[in-house]
Amino acid sequence: MKKYLMTPGPTPVPEEIRNEMAKPMIHHRTKEYQAIFNDATEGLKKIFKTSGDVFTFTASGTGAMEASIVNCLSAGDKIIVVRGGKFGERFGDIAKAFGVEVIGVDVEWGDAPKPEVIGDLLKKHPDVKGVYTTLCETSTATVYDIKAIGEIVRKTNALFVVDVISGLGADKFENDAWGVDIAVCGSQKGLMIPPGLSFCSVSQKAWKAVEESKLPKFYFSFKKYKKAYLNTDTPFTSAITLVIGLKKAVETINAEGIDKVIARHENMAEAFRESCKAMGLTIFSRRPSSAVTGVNAPAGINADDIIKLLKTEFGVTFAGGQDDLKGKIFRGAHMGGIDREHTVESMKALEKALVKLGYKFSVGKGVETAEKMLK
Amino acid sequence: MKKYLMTPGPTPVPEEIRNEMAKPMIHHRTKEYQAIFNDATEGLKKIFKTSGDVFTFTASGTGAMEASIVNCLSAGDKIIVVRGGKFGERFGDIAKAFGVEVIGVDVEWGDAPKPEVIGDLLKKHPDVKGVYTTLCETSTATVYDIKAIGEIVRKTNALFVVDVISGLGADKFENDAWGVDIAVCGSQKGLMIPPGLSFCSVSQKAWKAVEESKLPKFYFSFKKYKKAYLNTDTPFTSAITLVIGLKKAVETINAEGIDKVIARHENMAEAFRESCKAMGLTIFSRRPSSAVTGVNAPAGINADDIIKLLKTEFGVTFAGGQDDLKGKIFRGAHMGGIDREHTVESMKALEKALVKLGYKFSVGKGVETAEKMLK
Repeated sequence: MKKYLMTPGPTPVPEEIRNEMAKPMIHHRTKEYQAIFNDATEGLKKIFKTSGDVFTFTASGTGAMEASIVNCLSAGDKIIVVRGGKFGERFGDIAKAFGVEVIGVDVEWGDAPKPEVIGDLLKKHPDVKGVYTTLCETSTATVYDIKAIGEIVRKTNALFVVDVISGLGADKFENDAWGVDIAVCGSQKGLMIPPGLSFCSVSQKAWKAVEESKLPKFYFSFKKYKKAYLNTDTPFTSAITLVIGLKKAVETINAEGIDKVIARHENMAEAFRESCKAMGLTIFSRRPSSAVTGVNAPAGINADDIIKLLKTEFGVTFAGGQDDLKGKIFRGAHMGGIDREHTVESMKALEKALVKLGYKFSVGKGVETAEKMLK
Repeated sequence: MKKYLMTPGPTPVPEEIRNEMAKPMIHHRTKEYQAIFNDATEGLKKIFKTSGDVFTFTASGTGAMEASIVNCLSAGDKIIVVRGGKFGERFGDIAKAFGVEVIGVDVEWGDAPKPEVIGDLLKKHPDVKGVYTTLCETSTATVYDIKAIGEIVRKTNALFVVDVISGLGADKFENDAWGVDIAVCGSQKGLMIPPGLSFCSVSQKAWKAVEESKLPKFYFSFKKYKKAYLNTDTPFTSAITLVIGLKKAVETINAEGIDKVIARHENMAEAFRESCKAMGLTIFSRRPSSAVTGVNAPAGINADDIIKLLKTEFGVTFAGGQDDLKGKIFRGAHMGGIDREHTVESMKALEKALVKLGYKFSVGKGVETAEKMLK
């Protein structure tokens, strides 16, 4: 049974990238590796659409989230955090752990924050040091209007920090044009390599905040990274094989062109949504992402039963709902190594699973819709 | 030209481990992955010789070093740090970055600390919260007497924290029997997988310190790890492919038996040292490690010229001296995936390189000695 990994990270890693990472080990303090690392960094900048710094940490995405806090803030500082899902909440949790005061913008799960709400809060609290939010809130499969929020935040002294971990490479994103000061990303989503690396872009405005920041830091210190990068080096031993995979992945993405890559994932996401609708299902999010789609389970059927059946009998791995959404939604992704075949095959499997679970719908309509819409 | 990586991390990754890591991606929140992760953790405990916790971080070794500080200490606390090389100094640098006061035990590079000096300092400063030191100080290729230091520290309230990053799997080490509270390790040395993972063992005594610690932490929080491990889970997305490699590596090590693995590396280290001596060379360290050997360059020859020639003309990668030792020593490792063939071939290449550089010695004696001594 061929397997299809449809989870919003990790996504399938293309075979040519896996093979590249499986070559004999090389040392990291060599010209050969420096060239690889440098190519990976320059390639990332094109994908982020930034002319500023992009640092690669050996860490999960949460590590880079922590970096965006400890490098720019001091204990007692205030930040605005949009909390519309599990990952928005994490920014708040990290901030609190470091003694930073959090002004929460609570958004109903599945909704996106209203930019003017953030604007009003910034007026009310002119001492706010940063606005921390998410491009694609993975847990609710919702994309936020980062461009519009950026228009507001850039006029203030606050930094604009965006978690693009699951969105980058699938949802439109422009680091510099949208006024983003720090974009936080991970390796196992749109960048289609295994988990283990995470990234921070750092703007000039962010560097000013770094100078003022008093929170203690060492492993995630932007300054240590900057100093090492000036010598095409890393401050600590680099995760060599993952960076070799990253270089290959960003080359692949940039050869196609990031705008085309995004358009391809948007098309898959739309086909997936319309296919689900053709089966009579409904989409959870009011502002659906192109990186991942959350689908409401039909009345009387537990989403986790659908997921289990898909995995065990059809080899298709979907993700479940998190926290309050557990059992209510299932999530299928469109990012990274997920392709047309994954999308069609997962729809075929979903139809079969739903039939087995007794859900009544026009069998075949979903797959037909997906096949018709996919470019 | 066949290549031989003789650096003290990364070491060669055996082909069967590389192939295991190159398989199609799987998701981490699955029973399949939980079993892999659990096997890796249990296997690590055997190698550390501990019945306590061993946590796996997605981070370089420095990340786990930071974890050993932020989880157990508060700002203003005092610790003793043995500084006899680059990595001992790093513990001090991290501590200072977090507002922890450092009482340094400065040891001449190439020497090991005298246990009684640490004992005297602990008597003089009964409020010291921890003694931070190194099993194998990689930069000087020196192994410290951790057992003897442990005898002293265990009688006090101070924690005993040991960086075993390069030593584990090559130099003798017994976490529990030697009274070590936290041993910090990395993946790319004796554990013979690529860099990207690091580890902390945590004793019951260390857990008490964790309860009192006030330093801010999130990504490296032992408590978050402990909570997740109770559910055979990880707090953040795990570096899936590296953990798959780790499982395979610890299985390989434990199938041979950790004591036999260490004996094999001790034999390689001894053969390497004697082989160098047979060429008329001298060993830098007064207490040589079995993980890596530092060799003094002969008078009038720059060590970096030897290294360059070995790499470009003979495909053998040695490491250079760091900081003050740059140009004075070269280092060849014996840890992890480095085997008998690596040892002999690197000696053959070293003889040829030294001849080219005009060094006078009994050509052939080095290789002969290595071949005779290697089991």
